[in-house]
Amino acid sequence: MHPGSPSPSQAKPKYEICLIGSGGVGTIASLVLTKSSLARVTVVLRSKYAYVAQHGWEIDSVDHGKIPGWRPYRVVRSAEEAATRGKDGIEDNDDGNDNGESGKVEYDYVVVATKALPSLNPPVEMISPVVTPGKTAIVLIQNGIGIEDDIVKTWPGNAVLSSVSHIGSSVREPNLVVQVGKDVSKIGAHLHFGVADSVSIERAQTFVAMYSAGGAHECEFAADIDAARWEKLLWNGTFNPVCALLRMDVGELQRSKARETMLVPMMWEIWNVANAAIRGKGPGQGGQQGLPESIVRWMAYRLPDDCAYRPSMLLDLENGRAMEIDVILGNALRRARGLKVDTPVLEVVHNLLRVEEWRVNQEKKTLERA
Amino acid sequence: MHPGSPSPSQAKPKYEICLIGSGGVGTIASLVLTKSSLARVTVVLRSKYAYVAQHGWEIDSVDHGKIPGWRPYRVVRSAEEAATRGKDGIEDNDDGNDNGESGKVEYDYVVVATKALPSLNPPVEMISPVVTPGKTAIVLIQNGIGIEDDIVKTWPGNAVLSSVSHIGSSVREPNLVVQVGKDVSKIGAHLHFGVADSVSIERAQTFVAMYSAGGAHECEFAADIDAARWEKLLWNGTFNPVCALLRMDVGELQRSKARETMLVPMMWEIWNVANAAIRGKGPGQGGQQGLPESIVRWMAYRLPDDCAYRPSMLLDLENGRAMEIDVILGNALRRARGLKVDTPVLEVVHNLLRVEEWRVNQEKKTLERA
Repeated sequence: MHPGSPSPSQAKPKYEICLIGSGGVGTIASLVLTKSSLARVTVVLRSKYAYVAQHGWEIDSVDHGKIPGWRPYRVVRSAEEAATRGKDGIEDNDDGNDNGESGKVEYDYVVVATKALPSLNPPVEMISPVVTPGKTAIVLIQNGIGIEDDIVKTWPGNAVLSSVSHIGSSVREPNLVVQVGKDVSKIGAHLHFGVADSVSIERAQTFVAMYSAGGAHECEFAADIDAARWEKLLWNGTFNPVCALLRMDVGELQRSKARETMLVPMMWEIWNVANAAIRGKGPGQGGQQGLPESIVRWMAYRLPDDCAYRPSMLLDLENGRAMEIDVILGNALRRARGLKVDTPVLEVVHNLLRVEEWRVNQEKKTLERA
Repeated sequence: MHPGSPSPSQAKPKYEICLIGSGGVGTIASLVLTKSSLARVTVVLRSKYAYVAQHGWEIDSVDHGKIPGWRPYRVVRSAEEAATRGKDGIEDNDDGNDNGESGKVEYDYVVVATKALPSLNPPVEMISPVVTPGKTAIVLIQNGIGIEDDIVKTWPGNAVLSSVSHIGSSVREPNLVVQVGKDVSKIGAHLHFGVADSVSIERAQTFVAMYSAGGAHECEFAADIDAARWEKLLWNGTFNPVCALLRMDVGELQRSKARETMLVPMMWEIWNVANAAIRGKGPGQGGQQGLPESIVRWMAYRLPDDCAYRPSMLLDLENGRAMEIDVILGNALRRARGLKVDTPVLEVVHNLLRVEEWRVNQEKKTLERA
């Protein structure tokens, strides 16, 4: 038996969970869910599969301390593999203690913790093998706006939840997960017509209870997760792209006055779109109050001028990796057009970022040809 | 006697000219004016004074061939020095052949060929010692829009001309001037109420005739120099700042589709401001037809997609030098506000460039402290 995996004498946990995307955020989530003792977590790993299946993760966490060689219940190579049990060989911890279960696994929750790159990795394709229509609740721990749209459209009878997470956690090669920022999140349901609101809310509250029981620093239920996502976008849709474009950390950007000339105008544009979107929802769809005006100032001025934080898009750009432009700006701008809200500054920043993206892709092509 | 300076036996040329800013553009202008035999050219040099006063310029020009050790009539250290004659020592060619002239010099033309940085080097201060009110015509061979405003305000009784130049010429250390692009320009008068239009136009036509006589590839009189300047700004106010922001040459920018998402929208904004400005001029002030619609497409698509040209702002930014943001975007935006023309894309690009400028200045300060 591997350390960290449930002991064979334990009762079978209540919930079967498949987690896809085990980077810094996803691995801590799989640990928390496992620690709750309410979940049996199968993790889909791609590039890291071989190493982690053999050695597990080295965890160094502000919330959970140091855990050497930690493994979830199962580690598999693909969602297809996660969908079946008992043919995985020894790497998947299937060491004879699964009470003889085999065949198709019906997951209670599928947790998506990948970077949100819908153009490159459409989430529906990614999770399709592990979603049981009408049963599996889908939990998106991802950035951006509108990330749930395609999923709701594909599985209108499934609850779709999402998490707005503020954890600071990353992976260092080959298998070290370093969590420096406490795991603080809000989780709520994207209410839609195919699922009774009470059911969606119950699934979200159950997940929140499980996540809290697993020792996350703070996890609360969000009655209006859309508002919470828009609120986070005030930061993520402004600092993130402008730091990337200008290759500046947060403090440098603030000292340059770009906060006043760029970020605050962009925040007001997002604020306008958010409130048009939130207030446009029908009664019973939560929210309707929208974001308060005070939030813009708070978001723009909460970090100190010597803050050396380099947001994810800047790191992605510097490292020639795909940026989350679609979910952080693209979807918000599409929503703005639909709601006829003007977003002139966001549009220019979006267009400039698309040029940067083009250049990253060109450089990749050049490398591939070389 | 130095090679290239007028021979003592020549008649005194008709026009006394002071030229300030002897870089690639200015030095060729001083050569052309001198070659016309109509002008006696005093050149103000700052950093290069000592070397050029001793060795002259090495000229390598598509229009004029190779000219070793070329010197204008006089080379001086400052506009104050240019304003007086006969106390300059031998460096200024004052070798006894100036027919005993001394004292205050009244210039017919002052030619300004510096980089246009009005915040750093206010042009009025720069040329004040060599301008005789009511006499000296001021000729601006510079980029941008609105470069004449302060000069007209300060010397309402003086003709103010400007040149839209397409020369490709630069200086290599210490004294080599390499002109690779033919000297093609339009020169016209900025008509204003303190000077009769006929007088301003005559001063411009005289200058054009002199400049043509000096062997420039092409120099024509522009009846509406404002329209010509706006036309040039369609390129200079779009490719120039966006190439700088994105650190891309012209071809790369075009291949990235930034032409369609950024440059063409910016061109239409400039086109709108230009036409509001041109059509807003009173009768007899020239123009009034404005720029044709076709010019936007022509400007956007005239260069090939493999064009490796790196515009001046990009070079300035890469080399930590001041950029001509004020005259290329700042003045155009001020004009747009006055005319109530919307320029959302230009404004964002301008704000982002100001951040780049801030960073260049920060880096300078850091170097100075080190």
